[in-house]
Formats: sequence, structure tokens, C-alpha cells
Amino acid sequence: MQREVLDGAKEMMKEVIIEHLDIKNMLSSSNKFYIIDLGCSIGPNTFNSMQHVVQVVKDKYHDNILEFQVFFNDHVNNDFNTLFQSLPIDRSYYAFGVPGSFHDRLFPSRSIHFAHCSTSIHWLSKTPKELLDEKSPSWNKGLIHYIGASNIEVMNAYVAQFEKDMEMFFNARAEEIVPGGMMVLISPQFSERLLNFSGKLDESLVNSFNGPVYFPSIEDMTKVVEKNGCFSIEKIELTYPKSKLVDEADAKTLMINLRAVLEGLFINHFGSKIAKEAFTRTILKSDEISAWMKINYKKACQLFIALKRK
Amino acid sequence: MQREVLDGAKEMMKEVIIEHLDIKNMLSSSNKFYIIDLGCSIGPNTFNSMQHVVQVVKDKYHDNILEFQVFFNDHVNNDFNTLFQSLPIDRSYYAFGVPGSFHDRLFPSRSIHFAHCSTSIHWLSKTPKELLDEKSPSWNKGLIHYIGASNIEVMNAYVAQFEKDMEMFFNARAEEIVPGGMMVLISPQFSERLLNFSGKLDESLVNSFNGPVYFPSIEDMTKVVEKNGCFSIEKIELTYPKSKLVDEADAKTLMINLRAVLEGLFINHFGSKIAKEAFTRTILKSDEISAWMKINYKKACQLFIALKRK
Repeated sequence: MQREVLDGAKEMMKEVIIEHLDIKNMLSSSNKFYIIDLGCSIGPNTFNSMQHVVQVVKDKYHDNILEFQVFFNDHVNNDFNTLFQSLPIDRSYYAFGVPGSFHDRLFPSRSIHFAHCSTSIHWLSKTPKELLDEKSPSWNKGLIHYIGASNIEVMNAYVAQFEKDMEMFFNARAEEIVPGGMMVLISPQFSERLLNFSGKLDESLVNSFNGPVYFPSIEDMTKVVEKNGCFSIEKIELTYPKSKLVDEADAKTLMINLRAVLEGLFINHFGSKIAKEAFTRTILKSDEISAWMKINYKKACQLFIALKRK
Repeated sequence: MQREVLDGAKEMMKEVIIEHLDIKNMLSSSNKFYIIDLGCSIGPNTFNSMQHVVQVVKDKYHDNILEFQVFFNDHVNNDFNTLFQSLPIDRSYYAFGVPGSFHDRLFPSRSIHFAHCSTSIHWLSKTPKELLDEKSPSWNKGLIHYIGASNIEVMNAYVAQFEKDMEMFFNARAEEIVPGGMMVLISPQFSERLLNFSGKLDESLVNSFNGPVYFPSIEDMTKVVEKNGCFSIEKIELTYPKSKLVDEADAKTLMINLRAVLEGLFINHFGSKIAKEAFTRTILKSDEISAWMKINYKKACQLFIALKRK
């Protein structure tokens, strides 16, 4: 499923590059094309995506003069050693690491021609303060997650933090991306229903999700893009896995596949040890969830957004 | 002493930047200044040098519009995680990691305005094959070092490998550095005499130096630069520590200071475990060497070269 999700995103990226990217104007006399993967983690998905972008641009312009620079960004605590040691030998680009939060500036102004960010924008920069304040109407019983929260104030605090983060994110990218440059954002869509099955909340599962995350909707993303005002939306849509997996596979196979996706998110955020423990303790042992997820498989869709710097 | 060596190099870098660097022509309409530190290791010396270059260029042009990008390069097995986590918070440049051998291309053509390489070019890319071949006139008794070798063929094989490596190094930099861009190379000068004291060879010390290294002379460097033909030599000279350390300090202090320099080289090449062991076993326990080094302190000088891309 992870592979299929990636393949679907790759196909859509190809379409938007072919339809909307105009490098002739962007590069003028230069032959250097700068790509960044924001929140790249340690590979190999990032290598797959980056080589794809390079190849699609090359194919579109039948151009062997272009020189590609790919910048791999993630938090300063990301394992860049593993990332660098796994770089494909036969890559057709120059590779660089960029340590730092993508909510801040990472590059000089007008440096980037294509930005890519997959499965990362839902990680909030911090837990909204009011959720941890017992006296606040948004007090979340010590939980740092909105999933299953009965209080609308809790959800609002998460949305507000997401919007603040995205404001910083888009302000930074608006400076860094050249006019005409593009940005593709891909974000998973885990609704509350994913975790809130049978009307009951699985506490251990909710607790395993204890990092501050918010999974934005189409409406959320449209709002933050419009507020920033520097990007036009070329494409925005929800995509569903096309696989026959739901009909054919048993719940276990499905779990293993979905686990790979979720574990990637967790490793990225909490490190591999905690992630492994969380998944061993909770997800794989929950037969109820397994059965429920089989039915709700199609809800594990993702949001695809292609933007162009005005 | 390490600090003093660095300070001396910084002073000379400042001079060559003030006297020889002309950014107005180089940058034309852009405001982005690209710096690379080749063989940066894990810090903190590289941060010190890079901030210095940025500050000197800023001061020279009284310019707050310039945006600096610093690329930290070292082998793919360098500990970039430590490097990234040690990046100064208050740095006035955008920071990137560049994994790969500096004998190969690291950047697109005409990308770099200032290249810096300190205490790195003496590491050879490999041990010359013929030294390991018993039938060759350059057979080096299984040793992979020229220090103390009685056979002139052995030395020649090292010189030849150094020249091959530098040919690749200069070919790559000639492509990457913009016309008018500068490169500063700093290389320690450990002559055979450093290790060959009292007419006898300390076998354990020689064995601890078992990576392929060659410490080039002014003549060696002049030759490789001229062979490449793309750079003019703006400055080339041997520098000596000005410290009164030799007169005042006892041998032990001197050893500890020099050890820091040497250990840095070793850690860079062999990793910290091997380096620590080698130094604990050999250098610090050798009273003879200690006494000898006190006398020969001034021979621990370094070669400073400033080049400009034609």
C-alpha cells in the first residue's frame, strides 16, 4: 500500500510538472535546477521521489544541459548519516543535506525551483499551550492529541497551531521559491474515525499517537494558501489507493502494509525505538482494529496539492 | 598550539580576501555568496573558519544584502549528525552538508565563490598499488607509508598518487568555482624528520600513521596548480607558530597540544576509537619523542596557499 500511495503521488507529480512547470522563464540563462525535499527522513522514499522529479523534468525538456541539485531537508536530529550513506550511487543530481525546521527559512531568497513535501506537514511545531493548562477551556486532560477529544476547544487549538505553523511555512517558501517555481504537498488523511471505531476509543492507541499532529483537510489547506497569497493552487484533490488489497488480502496483510506507512511517520517523529515499541504493543495486537481497518481501508487516503509561486 | 595555528591561518585568509577577492564582478546581479569547506570533519574548527570568512567578506563590502550559503563537505562516512547538531545557533549563513570525496565533483559548474580546505589534502584517496606488490621496485615491505622508507621508489609512488589525486581535485574545483572565485588550502608540514629522530625510526609511531598520506611541499603544490592551469597563485608560504611555547612549556604541555592537532587528523581518517588507542599507546608514552619534539617544534609548520580561478 505504501508503494501504491507513492506511485499514485508520482503519477500526479508527473502530470503537474508536465502541465504547469515552465523552466524556460524561471532559469533564464542558468542551467541549474534546485529541488528540495522538505521532511525527507532517512530514505529510501525520498530518493525515489527526487529521482522521479529529476527524470520528469529531464524528459519534458529533452535537455542534457540541466544540472540538478537536490537538497534533503529534515530536523537537525534526523539521521543524516544514514541518509547520506544510502544515497543512490547512480543518481543524476548533486546531493546536499539541509538540517533545520521547515517552519523556518532554510535558503536565501529565490533559490528553489521545485519543492516537495510528503507526509510531513501534519507534524506541528509544538503542542498548543492552552491544552496543557488546566484552567483553560481547551484543557485536554493532559493528552496532547485532538483525536477523540470531546471538547471543540481542543480541536480549535490544534487547528490554530496548524495555521500558525503553515503561516511560517508558507512565508519561508514564498521567499525561497523563485517566481514560477512549484511546490507539491502530500499529506495523509487520518480522520478521527480511523481510531474511533465501534464508538469506543482505544486509549493505548491514542496514547501511542502522543505527538502533536494535525491532519489538514482540503478546506484547511486552501485557507492557509489563500492567507499567504503568494501561491496559486494548480491542483488540489484527495486520492484513494486503487488497490484490490481490500478485497483480496486478509486483515493481517493489510495491517502490515498500513503499519509500514504509520511507522514511517512515527520513526520520523519519535525515533525508531519508541515507534517499534508502540507498534508492537498496540497496533499489531489489536484484532478489532485490524478488522475495522479492513472495512475502512479507503479512508486512508491522502491530500495532494500542487502550487505555483506567483 | 592548534588554536594558534588556526588564528594564524585566519589572519592570512583575511589578508587574501581583502587584497584579492572581488565579489562585484563575480556576483553581478545576484546577492548570494557560496562558500565550501572541503574536508570539514565534525566541527568546531570548521564553524570558526566559516564564520570568519563570512565576517571578513561582510566587513569588506559593508554589505547587509549579501546572503551566505556555507556547504560543509566531507566523506560520506563523516559524522554529519554531530556536525549538524553542533551548528552555531547564531550563525549568519544558511548551512548545508555535502557528502562525498573532494577528489570528485560535488557541485554544478560555476557554483562556488570561495573554497576552503584545511588539514585535508594530504589524505590520499588510496595507497599506491605498487607499494603492496612484492615484485615491484616500489615494494614497501607491507608498510603503507613513505615515512622512513629507504627506497626512493616508495617516495615516488606516494608523490605520484598525490599528483593524481590533486589532478582530480583541481579539475573538479576548476569546474565548480566561478571565474574570480578563490580557494585557500592549508596543509600541515610533517617532514620525515619529525618522526625520524636520533637517526632511529620509532616503528610503533610509524605504524600508527598507517593511512596513506602525503604532506606536500611548496614545490609539489606549485607543480599541481600549474599543471591544472585554471588558477593563479595569489599567495603561497610556509607559516610557523609564533608562540613562545617552545621556550616556556615543558615537553608534556607541548605533547598535549600537538596531540590535539595530530589526533584531529587521525580521527578524521580512522575514527576516534583507533585514534585514541594509537595515541595512548604511542605518542604520549614516548619520552624520547617528547624531548625531540620540543627541539623540533618549529618544524610543525604549515603551508598556506591562496588561489584565484582565472
